Amino acid sequence: MFESASLPHVMTKAAFEAAETQLRERLLDAQFEVADRKNAAVMVLINGSDGVGKGEIVNRLYDWLDDHFVETLSYGRPTDEERARPGAWRYWRDIPAKGRIGLVLGSWHHRLLRNRALGRLGRNAYDRALEEMIRAEEMLRHEGVYLLKIWLHMDFAEARRRLKKLRQSDGALRRPAVVEWDEFESEKDRARLADAALEMIERTSTGDAPWAVVPAADPRYRDAAVGDLLLQTLTRAAGDGRPSPRTLAIAAPANDLPKPSLVSFLDLAQGADRATYAQELRALQQRLTEATTARSFRDRGLVIAFEGNDAAGKGGAILRVREALDPRRFRVHGVAAPTDEERARPYLWRFWRNVPRRGDVAIFDRSWYGRVLVERVEGFAAPQDWMRAYQEINDFERELDENRYTVVKFWLAISPDEQLRRFQDREAKPFKRYKLTPDDWRNREKWQLYEAAMTDMIDRTSSRHAPWTIVEANDKKFARLKVLQTIVDRLEEAGRA
Amino acid sequence: MFESASLPHVMTKAAFEAAETQLRERLLDAQFEVADRKNAAVMVLINGSDGVGKGEIVNRLYDWLDDHFVETLSYGRPTDEERARPGAWRYWRDIPAKGRIGLVLGSWHHRLLRNRALGRLGRNAYDRALEEMIRAEEMLRHEGVYLLKIWLHMDFAEARRRLKKLRQSDGALRRPAVVEWDEFESEKDRARLADAALEMIERTSTGDAPWAVVPAADPRYRDAAVGDLLLQTLTRAAGDGRPSPRTLAIAAPANDLPKPSLVSFLDLAQGADRATYAQELRALQQRLTEATTARSFRDRGLVIAFEGNDAAGKGGAILRVREALDPRRFRVHGVAAPTDEERARPYLWRFWRNVPRRGDVAIFDRSWYGRVLVERVEGFAAPQDWMRAYQEINDFERELDENRYTVVKFWLAISPDEQLRRFQDREAKPFKRYKLTPDDWRNREKWQLYEAAMTDMIDRTSSRHAPWTIVEANDKKFARLKVLQTIVDRLEEAGRA
Repeated sequence: MFESASLPHVMTKAAFEAAETQLRERLLDAQFEVADRKNAAVMVLINGSDGVGKGEIVNRLYDWLDDHFVETLSYGRPTDEERARPGAWRYWRDIPAKGRIGLVLGSWHHRLLRNRALGRLGRNAYDRALEEMIRAEEMLRHEGVYLLKIWLHMDFAEARRRLKKLRQSDGALRRPAVVEWDEFESEKDRARLADAALEMIERTSTGDAPWAVVPAADPRYRDAAVGDLLLQTLTRAAGDGRPSPRTLAIAAPANDLPKPSLVSFLDLAQGADRATYAQELRALQQRLTEATTARSFRDRGLVIAFEGNDAAGKGGAILRVREALDPRRFRVHGVAAPTDEERARPYLWRFWRNVPRRGDVAIFDRSWYGRVLVERVEGFAAPQDWMRAYQEINDFERELDENRYTVVKFWLAISPDEQLRRFQDREAKPFKRYKLTPDDWRNREKWQLYEAAMTDMIDRTSSRHAPWTIVEANDKKFARLKVLQTIVDRLEEAGRA
Repeated sequence: MFESASLPHVMTKAAFEAAETQLRERLLDAQFEVADRKNAAVMVLINGSDGVGKGEIVNRLYDWLDDHFVETLSYGRPTDEERARPGAWRYWRDIPAKGRIGLVLGSWHHRLLRNRALGRLGRNAYDRALEEMIRAEEMLRHEGVYLLKIWLHMDFAEARRRLKKLRQSDGALRRPAVVEWDEFESEKDRARLADAALEMIERTSTGDAPWAVVPAADPRYRDAAVGDLLLQTLTRAAGDGRPSPRTLAIAAPANDLPKPSLVSFLDLAQGADRATYAQELRALQQRLTEATTARSFRDRGLVIAFEGNDAAGKGGAILRVREALDPRRFRVHGVAAPTDEERARPYLWRFWRNVPRRGDVAIFDRSWYGRVLVERVEGFAAPQDWMRAYQEINDFERELDENRYTVVKFWLAISPDEQLRRFQDREAKPFKRYKLTPDDWRNREKWQLYEAAMTDMIDRTSSRHAPWTIVEANDKKFARLKVLQTIVDRLEEAGRA
């Protein structure tokens, strides 16, 4: 969930100041619109580790907004009054009136996370609580309360350093700060907390109210991003009620904020050692054969999805996987435009029907991720439809996982230059020419859009049970080894579990 | 959930034939519209005990519809192929194409119920499964698959008798019948099954896809009701996608089907024994005082909701309850039109804020049920809003229950004649005149609409944790005793638990 948010996000002072001027004006306009029409309330839920700047965000928003229509709703340890009533009472009591904005610290998510991380909620009870939360938030939406769920993300060591700095002079806080997690001191506690948080963000990111993970290391970037997200939410609250795809963005909500792509930080040129390649390949294939013919695999299944840039070498990688499999026990599904049969049914139908028997392997050459890649970029699916797809896909893959399938997902990444070289090569060689279509050239022009869609996709669907593997694929041999290695590792891990 | 469905529902042969002619024509029209437009599929999920006529319904629908666009989807014990894959695979595989109608026997609800009743799913796992089901069904709806969830209801002994009849000659089935529950033979098994079913119907009846409980004792009524429900669903699938309030109806979907009201079967004229009334009242009040001042009550709460016809005697009943309570520990909330403050927030807010501390009592003179009574009848809430309210209210009350509140709900029922007498009495006596408003006369003209809304309300929200009590209130003394008796019984039961 934090893939792209973990990349450096910075904003220069000049860029921030330029953005701020415009943002403030638009925020105030949108706020007055909401205040005038009085048909919706907005709640900004500000969450994250201690030290990431939750209090600073609140202060900043007070600076930017008209504070007559803003209130801070802050929940700490329950008071006597609160303890004497159901847990939800205090949140209900404080729901802002239509026309107003509530800035929420310590929302219901915080309480749930805490109970889970402290071991007070078991697996099923936590699952149930998350599902009920989804439904309660949907009810709020129907009733005209718009939620902006923000998770401020920062490297933990950095957050701790910042918190210490606030405390430096004689131990007391130099400035008021929002400290919520001080009981989670040990490494183990923090790991449990991080795990629960990751799961909560994955499970409760609905198409209608997704979590926005905001990189918080650079305060300027952080504030500009939160401001833009709030602007989207206010606009939605004042207007037609449709969610904006920009509230989905994790890394960079606004087009004018520098948006690092996940791929731009990779070393795509990594190469395999030519001298040992053949030997390594054979060894990995051997291990794959063993893993998929082991007795324990009969009761498990394997589903592999290949996505990536055009000409990134998916076919060649699939060939190397295929070679190691029992020909009776696998099937490769090339996913092109849906057939009439498929178009007449929910988009996941064509993949569900091809879920293999346990003991078998299904390889998808392009996959259900088309929904959030090509269908998004080309406009084949409406924003509200592809926005809800992340959650639906996570549900689908979780169901596979719970049914003892190993789900392995690859994004094969090449550079634009390398792609051009391969396209020209295909054009030049008659026997390869069939592989190149006018679509490929058209897609190439939309490189940025595809890269943004890919970044959102990986942020939203790299889940605990089905993580993405990005494969640096400028060197085909390197890519093939990495693909095989990943599959073998995942299978062997599943076999041990 | 089965309150009104348990009343006798009959249809004469002549009435059925008249309805059938019209229904068939309209069903075919609607079916062709769906088949032509190909933007939606319809799944009719046919559930209920064995012997209620599931197979007969399927046959009847084949008679009425154009069978080119209909398919039967039937799920029994999983095949080898199905067992080798995730449980959801077989349902996914069979999703009908847009333009088509699937008649489903043994849907996913069946499997879940079975596992719960056999004790294979614990409390939390069942809860989680129900929540996931709600979400999966919502996904289908977004993808253009409309569900009509039918529960055929019949007295168990009667269902068994019918099943036996099908088997009479030499033990074999005389006609093919749908037998799904033959492993549930013992009284105890059946009770567990009924319990799980009740809960499933309550929890998974969403505003968008509510369960329709169809009384099945009279085959003519049953078939006409199912036909009308299907017509509503097809119309919705072909058209704007909004749910029709008629798909909500439990007792009688169509206006032209005889619709028994819950009240019409009561003996409203029941009277209290004048000789012992005062003594009984005092005894019950004494028990109420004891129950609400007991040590164990300090950690519990009591929430009482009074609804009923105008002039049914809510005030007098509340007075008798109030007298028995510690004046520091209760509050009566008279619920009138919402204030500006309240209108600016979700409709449950005004009730949530008045949830009492544990150890205290809140009495609501009219309640959150206004949403599905006056707001429905007067059109203050749009159909899709009051239709989702049943589930939201059940969630609210379940949350109170889980937080150790006892929720007691009364409907005080008087006859139209008795109401008229009381209105006239109020007009005649100056000191009572303030109690009578022009609204009361207007509401009286909508008697039938309110009674239908009340029937739906009790069917939809008489849950295990918060059942309704209908109070025959033509005799005020009888009503007061019944109210007190009910509260005292519920509190004493909660104290024992």
